[in-house]
Amino acid sequence: MNIEHTRHSLAHLLGAAVMSLYPDAKLTLGPAIEDGFYYDVSFAQNISSDDLPKIEAKMREMLPSWKSVSHREVSKEEALEYYKGNEFKIELINEIAEKGEKITLYTMGPSADSGFTDLCRGGHTDDLSSIDPESFKLDRVAGAYWRGSEKNPMLTRIYGIAFESKASLDEFLHMREEAEKRDHRKLGKELGLFTFSQTVGQGLPIWLPKGATIRRELERFIVDTELDWGYLHVNTPDIAKLDLYRKSGHYPYYKESMYAPIVIDDEEFMLRPMTCPHHFELFSDSPKSYRDLPMRIAELAKLYRYEASGELSGLVRVRGFCLADAHIICADPKQAQDEVSKALDLIEYVANVFGLKRDIDYWYRLSLGDRTDDKKYYKNDSAWDEGEALLREILVGRGGKFYEAENEAAFYGPKIDIQMKDVRGKDNTAFTVQYDFCMPERFNLEYTAQDGTKKRPLVVHRSSIGAIERVMAFLIEHYAGAFPVWISPLQVAVLPVGEMHEEYAMEITKALKDAGVRAETWTTDGLGKRIRKAKIEKVPYQIVIGDKERDAKTVTVEGRNDLKLEQIKLDEFVTRIVSEIKNRKDL
Amino acid sequence: MNIEHTRHSLAHLLGAAVMSLYPDAKLTLGPAIEDGFYYDVSFAQNISSDDLPKIEAKMREMLPSWKSVSHREVSKEEALEYYKGNEFKIELINEIAEKGEKITLYTMGPSADSGFTDLCRGGHTDDLSSIDPESFKLDRVAGAYWRGSEKNPMLTRIYGIAFESKASLDEFLHMREEAEKRDHRKLGKELGLFTFSQTVGQGLPIWLPKGATIRRELERFIVDTELDWGYLHVNTPDIAKLDLYRKSGHYPYYKESMYAPIVIDDEEFMLRPMTCPHHFELFSDSPKSYRDLPMRIAELAKLYRYEASGELSGLVRVRGFCLADAHIICADPKQAQDEVSKALDLIEYVANVFGLKRDIDYWYRLSLGDRTDDKKYYKNDSAWDEGEALLREILVGRGGKFYEAENEAAFYGPKIDIQMKDVRGKDNTAFTVQYDFCMPERFNLEYTAQDGTKKRPLVVHRSSIGAIERVMAFLIEHYAGAFPVWISPLQVAVLPVGEMHEEYAMEITKALKDAGVRAETWTTDGLGKRIRKAKIEKVPYQIVIGDKERDAKTVTVEGRNDLKLEQIKLDEFVTRIVSEIKNRKDL
Repeated sequence: MNIEHTRHSLAHLLGAAVMSLYPDAKLTLGPAIEDGFYYDVSFAQNISSDDLPKIEAKMREMLPSWKSVSHREVSKEEALEYYKGNEFKIELINEIAEKGEKITLYTMGPSADSGFTDLCRGGHTDDLSSIDPESFKLDRVAGAYWRGSEKNPMLTRIYGIAFESKASLDEFLHMREEAEKRDHRKLGKELGLFTFSQTVGQGLPIWLPKGATIRRELERFIVDTELDWGYLHVNTPDIAKLDLYRKSGHYPYYKESMYAPIVIDDEEFMLRPMTCPHHFELFSDSPKSYRDLPMRIAELAKLYRYEASGELSGLVRVRGFCLADAHIICADPKQAQDEVSKALDLIEYVANVFGLKRDIDYWYRLSLGDRTDDKKYYKNDSAWDEGEALLREILVGRGGKFYEAENEAAFYGPKIDIQMKDVRGKDNTAFTVQYDFCMPERFNLEYTAQDGTKKRPLVVHRSSIGAIERVMAFLIEHYAGAFPVWISPLQVAVLPVGEMHEEYAMEITKALKDAGVRAETWTTDGLGKRIRKAKIEKVPYQIVIGDKERDAKTVTVEGRNDLKLEQIKLDEFVTRIVSEIKNRKDL
Repeated sequence: MNIEHTRHSLAHLLGAAVMSLYPDAKLTLGPAIEDGFYYDVSFAQNISSDDLPKIEAKMREMLPSWKSVSHREVSKEEALEYYKGNEFKIELINEIAEKGEKITLYTMGPSADSGFTDLCRGGHTDDLSSIDPESFKLDRVAGAYWRGSEKNPMLTRIYGIAFESKASLDEFLHMREEAEKRDHRKLGKELGLFTFSQTVGQGLPIWLPKGATIRRELERFIVDTELDWGYLHVNTPDIAKLDLYRKSGHYPYYKESMYAPIVIDDEEFMLRPMTCPHHFELFSDSPKSYRDLPMRIAELAKLYRYEASGELSGLVRVRGFCLADAHIICADPKQAQDEVSKALDLIEYVANVFGLKRDIDYWYRLSLGDRTDDKKYYKNDSAWDEGEALLREILVGRGGKFYEAENEAAFYGPKIDIQMKDVRGKDNTAFTVQYDFCMPERFNLEYTAQDGTKKRPLVVHRSSIGAIERVMAFLIEHYAGAFPVWISPLQVAVLPVGEMHEEYAMEITKALKDAGVRAETWTTDGLGKRIRKAKIEKVPYQIVIGDKERDAKTVTVEGRNDLKLEQIKLDEFVTRIVSEIKNRKDL
């Protein structure tokens, strides 16, 4: 079974059901899409999702008889006659005729003589009656302008979902439901992690105290890890003169992604879209020798890239973000190869902290340039060949899977992308490691080699954890808000049963805080309400303090996944949680 | 003795000496200035600092006879006749006459009849011969345009320094020499802490790895301290729509300090000059109750304020900086008063970490508004009276000294400034705590009081450590680059005597790093050179590893202030340095 063909045929079935129930309706276009199909219809009356069960029932009623598909080529006149009164189909017919293409009518139903006929190019399942009637469903109703233009009439789009089997459909619906529950925009609001303000501006997230806590933990984690791995962290300005981007060559290539200049005393400054040129200026601030290389210049850098307001979405598509960026200045291709490999090691280490495994949760993509496209890619054929071969060699050497993608490189060289599926099943580039033979030329980067001569280095661009905003969106959805202890905004809620337990509760909270644990004593509201609040806020641990605990100087701890530690010594719990935080791994 | 008068008289003496040695020279203007005096002279020949000893000797030769000062009023014609050929003095005489002021000639020297006569308004020491000839000296030569305009001829300015006594002069010269040695721009370059790039832009510091390390330590220190003190750290965007600053009222008041807008899709965005409006938007994101107050919203925020390119100086006057900012939303004046007091406690705590003591290193200033200036200050007389009284009460209650300064408040309310002298002896505002009754109105801030009614809160604005850039400049100069261990970029240099000690040296370095100490093994160059390098770079500790240390598994540590720990156990040293880092206090 070709699922695309089935989805397409189901769109016809939807059209047939609509016409049977609403003879005044005018059908327009009804294609197969990812996960299903839709039909855009011009109805004489208002149609809402309440009407879908009726239409779906009609489809199921017609389905067993849809055993035949046939088509015939017709003249323009015949087609226009057939669709008299339907200005949408008439427009389509005239367009097909103008292009000199064949006009075909498809009839689907019990036989070639009796069935539902529609203007179509073909691509159908021969015997639709053979599919499981439970493998599809109508999903929702939305408004859609005819041919996508707001100058045209508004139509009603009916969406359907269809899969190979009922099981696949159920799996999809379940995944979508889960994804909706995990949606970082929804959870971000519920958990008080971040917000937006129309007065501050769209696409500019405001991190509330809890979200800022997670962000701080992530930032410190990545900086400390990179320092451990031999990176030198620096701090460079978020704005720079336009000249800098002219020098780097980013300006013509990236102009569309950059915001308008800020004029200061007749000079033009830009919100930076990347850190590369800043790091190159920093490298050239003092003479460098081969002993200084590889020099791994890293920064948690705020970057600004243009996104149209319609494209902005939660923390994933924003106008300003903070990238864990680095540029590794390398003496020669051999050193660059080593550094690319080490950068991949670091990425795998970081991914592992979040429980992600290569070839299961993420995989490598080798992104290549196109030698014929001088506009998009810096011209230097032999350097491209060398760079691509060198990256391929690394990926082959590391084992595991990878695939190659044409025309996905940066303008200055090929790269290795780390691809990951989000909770919606969509493929994204999470991190990237790039090989650059172009910028060292433009910035006249040089170092003194062992033989005393001046040499041109190579540059490896890489991110380790990517943009903090995107990672945050990913982690919220990945953990459905139940973060590992080390990044949980509040790690322990201490809940005294009554007023007479508050003093001991405060002692417990203080001891936890002294050990570096984020703990709070909650006293307002009844105990049940407080326990529920802790669960809703996904606090990893709750400590309930009653008479027994106070008198025995113990604690009773409840945690996620039904964990219960009855009346244990506080020290024992402190050791446990401190170790979870330190090792960034929940027990 | 009036030191101003003496300095002014010494300018005349300088003029007399110049005319005696260079009869072709034309004197122009010669005033007293802070620390001394100068005379701008139009010389027929080139004069350099090499000529100063001769001129100074002539001054000292003339000095004992300068017992008399006399003056007479002259007509414009007489004055013009006297200065025939000196176009500068002629210009001055014409101007005085035009204004209808008196023209006076002062004669200073042995008597009213014999001496050096100059056009002057008076203000002299009667008997200049009585001053200590060692209490002044000529300092340097500089170019200066006549009347400061580059359209006018260039003159030679001879600077002199003069104090009440030789001792005061020597003290000044010593302090100046020290200040020059400690100048953060000089040390910043020598120690590789930060740099600037003309291509990136003036006034935009680039923090090199070592400077970025100090910065990171300072930032983590202040964030962790504030979290301990009950602040909620947030993260808000560095840009915002212009509307936000119109709403806050900052736009008309601060327009001159803000950079030109960035246009995004027809909306105007500004680089933010302050965080207040962002934090108010954040506060109003969800309904607040009296239980949420005081809410201490803190952020390490990047801010951008206009500085003319001529005003930019090192890290002190920059175009972008990072402020440890906070806004404390308070239920009522009583709570605001408590919070101002706690903010001062925090400032004193932070200052103490850097060894600074109140009333010795810094002192409080109560900065008041001017009720008559509606343009500069938000109009609400009774709120100003209440706010000023409340801040005064706090300062009186805390004991110690403070002074009041008119017309130094913020536009939205009075403030307490923490003033500090820099190494040049110049007074600066280091931190500030402000009382605000204006913004809550503008932003319509509200909370639900205990009685269920909606109430308007008050806001306390405060910085704890000020701007990171300024603190850094201050600390570099305060410590003359020899930072306390906890912020030293490199804390220990491990120096193996020879190759056969390298393995053990690496072990030591690894053990130190594992304990969280910033340590490096240095192997290049001879031992003497490495020890000198460590001293120049002001590394707190050097560990020299020779046969003895390797064989006995000990370390010999040399530190600043001639510290030497011979052959101690590594553990012992680790305990010492880890405690220094943790307590932020060198032993």
